Amino acid sequence: MSSPWTLARRAERLNPSTIREILKITERPGIISLAGGLPSADTFPVAAMAEASARVLREQPREALQYASSEGHGPLREWVAAELVGQGMRVDASQVLITTGSQQGLDLVGKVLIDPGCRVAVEQPTYLGALQAFAPYEPEFQAIAGDEEGPLPEALAAAAGARFVYLLPNFQNPSGRCLSAARRLALVQAAAEAGVPIVEDNPYGDLWFDEPPPPPLSASAGDNAVYLGSFSKVLAPGLRLGYVVAPKVLYPKLLQAKQAADLHTPGFNQRIVYEVIKAGFLRDHVPTIRARYKLQRDAMQAAMLKHLPPGCRWSMPVGGMFFWVELPLGLDAAALLPAAVAAGMAFVPGEPFFAAGGHANTLRLSFVTVAPELIHTAVAALGGVLHQALESATR
Amino acid sequence: MSSPWTLARRAERLNPSTIREILKITERPGIISLAGGLPSADTFPVAAMAEASARVLREQPREALQYASSEGHGPLREWVAAELVGQGMRVDASQVLITTGSQQGLDLVGKVLIDPGCRVAVEQPTYLGALQAFAPYEPEFQAIAGDEEGPLPEALAAAAGARFVYLLPNFQNPSGRCLSAARRLALVQAAAEAGVPIVEDNPYGDLWFDEPPPPPLSASAGDNAVYLGSFSKVLAPGLRLGYVVAPKVLYPKLLQAKQAADLHTPGFNQRIVYEVIKAGFLRDHVPTIRARYKLQRDAMQAAMLKHLPPGCRWSMPVGGMFFWVELPLGLDAAALLPAAVAAGMAFVPGEPFFAAGGHANTLRLSFVTVAPELIHTAVAALGGVLHQALESATR
Repeated sequence: MSSPWTLARRAERLNPSTIREILKITERPGIISLAGGLPSADTFPVAAMAEASARVLREQPREALQYASSEGHGPLREWVAAELVGQGMRVDASQVLITTGSQQGLDLVGKVLIDPGCRVAVEQPTYLGALQAFAPYEPEFQAIAGDEEGPLPEALAAAAGARFVYLLPNFQNPSGRCLSAARRLALVQAAAEAGVPIVEDNPYGDLWFDEPPPPPLSASAGDNAVYLGSFSKVLAPGLRLGYVVAPKVLYPKLLQAKQAADLHTPGFNQRIVYEVIKAGFLRDHVPTIRARYKLQRDAMQAAMLKHLPPGCRWSMPVGGMFFWVELPLGLDAAALLPAAVAAGMAFVPGEPFFAAGGHANTLRLSFVTVAPELIHTAVAALGGVLHQALESATR
Repeated sequence: MSSPWTLARRAERLNPSTIREILKITERPGIISLAGGLPSADTFPVAAMAEASARVLREQPREALQYASSEGHGPLREWVAAELVGQGMRVDASQVLITTGSQQGLDLVGKVLIDPGCRVAVEQPTYLGALQAFAPYEPEFQAIAGDEEGPLPEALAAAAGARFVYLLPNFQNPSGRCLSAARRLALVQAAAEAGVPIVEDNPYGDLWFDEPPPPPLSASAGDNAVYLGSFSKVLAPGLRLGYVVAPKVLYPKLLQAKQAADLHTPGFNQRIVYEVIKAGFLRDHVPTIRARYKLQRDAMQAAMLKHLPPGCRWSMPVGGMFFWVELPLGLDAAALLPAAVAAGMAFVPGEPFFAAGGHANTLRLSFVTVAPELIHTAVAALGGVLHQALESATR
């Protein structure tokens, strides 16, 4: 019997997430996974969460458990606006839309802005989850040329006519790269000149190690930018709490798309997070995450210097969660993954992060999920696999 | 300066929710609102939720607060599958996708199945939130002719070629109507003959008063149906927890759409709900909701018999949350809403529930949100407004 179901054309653009498929393989016991972008569970503020959950259910259960406004919990929106004003943005709470993780912000942006066949400009490499969120709206991805410092401002002229350029300025996933203040300003100016608005995604900005990153692009781009943020990296991802900040001309459509998508983000979660953070909890908590991740970065850097073969290239990230490694040309990271898993470790091959494919000799390593001694063991195993691959290649 | 933002064509189909706009007006203190479809907050199991939240954060904090699988929490998926098997469906847990409220299920179904310009068959009236979820994917809505018992099986022949027919068999929002067993079977057969698959939405099925509704359409439709369910009406909507059950041919695409939309539904919420329900909590809890709502339905029925003017027609719902009222022809419910609000009550005009508009003389009243004495006061106020309108009309 034939199926009565006919798929929408856009469903062809939905595909299994390479990373999620890899994560499933690497969940086998005994594998040290540097593949996922999972924050260290040791950083989750469990006691504060427990206290806040109990308080919300004691003091405001009827509000927390009832349907709520699509815009989000008022005090939380105020908190976000104040936080961003502190980073140099001009924002008021009426521009803040609370989302079910910042992934939902990407979906809403795609839904409201992307027509089939229109162009969306992206860095190369860029966040795979954004490519996946935008893809079902059937854009043509246009890769922006870059250099060691990130996307090139002069390359934005070629993006004129694109619906937007998607930029991840701080400790980018997957490259780890942080844009300089000068590059940010040049990009904002070039985008304005090309008439291309900016979608700025900043899930990692708080995870700096020695000094905070420069102000967001949105601080100088005004109504030419939408800004996405998240509580996943500073509190916990299992809450699924993020936000979009939009210019007034766009906000109503994003809000209507949000209503259609899931009515509202769980009010229970929003109120718990607000209770946790309202009195300044993050001022003490985030520095402990930074210190931990900096140690783990250093451990990975040391292990890579010791174990990776000559010809591997990487830059040391100054924040965030990832090292990005270029293997000697000719090595194919995806092809080496089974050997790495057999050796007890896992990474993510780099190719899926490129909208146009290629760059098979790249891979991403997360330094935040496992502790330093495990990082050493995993990187040593990776080094062994790479040494062996190079020997086979030269034989 | 002109805006750099260009909206996608589909954004034209996003519009403010009439109901949410009305709800804002009616949140003024002193207004008794029968407008929203808000469960009574008195039914929220706050103590059980508090206990479960504490237990989850004590026993499984790292799992509950970490990123999780897009499919949903395994034990919760098993629970849903077993529950539906008990209602006569053939389901296994691998077909269950946990969603961020059942509204998200509607969005995912639309994303995966609707191409611009294709037809989607709907009841008249139908759930406004479904029209809003589907609309941005740019379908043509095709209204299915009905009678007092619901949509007519013979009308489905005309829907041949539609991507699906959207049906809400139990205590429909807004009409309150419950489909008979015979009508269900006839609809399932007619849909199969027309080659039109069924999207069955069942948020209210547990809220029966005297006897459970007949088995879901999905119990006899096999792979010809997708089924949507929700925990919003039996636990609390502020958790945003629902599910989609899909045939194996559709599941992977819905899952990929879910990943793209918000990665996964909050694991924290999923684990709390599973802790609340796993030992049979709903077996005792849901009957208390039914008993309360039945009393409130009876109070509204009595108040309507006493206060509504001759010429108003309605059927008494045998479950769910809503009375659907037809006013004498010539009365316009939307035009009367300001007078009703001035008199201290609010309802939802019926026209937005019709994909093709019209039926201005209809309105929806919720009997679940406020207590019987307030129901009486509000219906009396509505009756006053209607009597006055009829007097003006005949003068």
